[in-house]
Amino acid sequence: MGVYYDEINVKTKGEVDIIDITSDIQNIVSKSKLKDGIACIFVKGSTGTITTIEYEPGLMKDLPRALQKIAPKGEHYAHHETWHDDNGHSHVRASLMGPSITIPIRNRKIIHGTWQQIVFVELDTGNRNREIIVQIVGE
Amino acid sequence: MGVYYDEINVKTKGEVDIIDITSDIQNIVSKSKLKDGIACIFVKGSTGTITTIEYEPGLMKDLPRALQKIAPKGEHYAHHETWHDDNGHSHVRASLMGPSITIPIRNRKIIHGTWQQIVFVELDTGNRNREIIVQIVGE
Amino acid sequence: MGVYYDEINVKTKGEVDIIDITSDIQNIVSKSKLKDGIACIFVKGSTGTITTIEYEPGLMKDLPRALQKIAPKGEHYAHHETWHDDNGHSHVRASLMGPSITIPIRNRKIIHGTWQQIVFVELDTGNRNREIIVQIVGE
Repeated sequence: MGVYYDEINVKTKGEVDIIDITSDIQNIVSKSKLKDGIACIFVKGSTGTITTIEYEPGLMKDLPRALQKIAPKGEHYAHHETWHDDNGHSHVRASLMGPSITIPIRNRKIIHGTWQQIVFVELDTGNRNREIIVQIVGE
Repeated sequence: MGVYYDEINVKTKGEVDIIDITSDIQNIVSKSKLKDGIACIFVKGSTGTITTIEYEPGLMKDLPRALQKIAPKGEHYAHHETWHDDNGHSHVRASLMGPSITIPIRNRKIIHGTWQQIVFVELDTGNRNREIIVQIVGE
Repeated sequence: MGVYYDEINVKTKGEVDIIDITSDIQNIVSKSKLKDGIACIFVKGSTGTITTIEYEPGLMKDLPRALQKIAPKGEHYAHHETWHDDNGHSHVRASLMGPSITIPIRNRKIIHGTWQQIVFVELDTGNRNREIIVQIVGE
């Protein structure tokens, strides 16, 4: 049994940029030499999220539209009073979606559907350098 | 320490069918011979989700009603242009809810509340054969 | 490798009380003597959730406002017919947000952003005594 730690560093292109990190995660699993286990994918920061999606151009528009309905940009947020900031909606969206997912690993491969990619979703209002943690526990 | 892999295969009855998989997961934990650890429950595919709910008939109507508000069926989705498909809302709902949860195992039992069952939620528009992965890491 | 189990017991102050459990989780990690691994944080019960948020007073108002939009309190829920209860919205919110997150542990520290705290969110309508499970797998 063992634990293997690595990070994925991505530069995002601003609000609701959705980045496919599936192959980055698979590369880390391959480097880990662990055959079976689980990977925790965790975003460090409170204005981004990890999820899965079919990575095609249509859904890159549809998911942001749903997020705009749930926590609209442009409305007033009490968060703005605290920091004179403008990203209250980013924080609310991130808390609703959560900071982490876990993925099973079998025979040195992460398990996912053919049309199911693992993505980081930038929810903040500008470009950001993001640190995504991949922590694997297995054997 | 060890890793134990198994799958739950379910046949769903179409859109927003909610299936209680609590006893299936407990059976896998029992077969695993692992006493303590965590179980990653992961749906392979981008139009379903795993969560917990009190499994009673009322909430089987209430959760779909909330999902219809968040990502309405019947609206236009850009996803439909890509594939001439009709399940854009299914994909958006799945990405918002996420593909996985993790559950603690103690003394060969999964931990959950008395009125808290672990469920697979079918979000796609038709009947599907679903493959739910259960990967346990523990000792 | 090893597994370490502990619980966080909190007394909540009613609906949408948000409680910072970051230091409780760190204390458990310190007690565990495990250096690297992952922690599964799981709420036992179907009307609460675990997530991360920047723990400042503004967002303590903004997150509840978003939840009121997604699954409004005061509307009719079929759940109320089953139990003559009034917390249908609490259940729906909890199922949408999910019961668990997983957090990476490195060099005896949980990883999280400076402005990203781990929180329990009380979604039920009254004060509750809550049992939050922390199950660590690592080495």
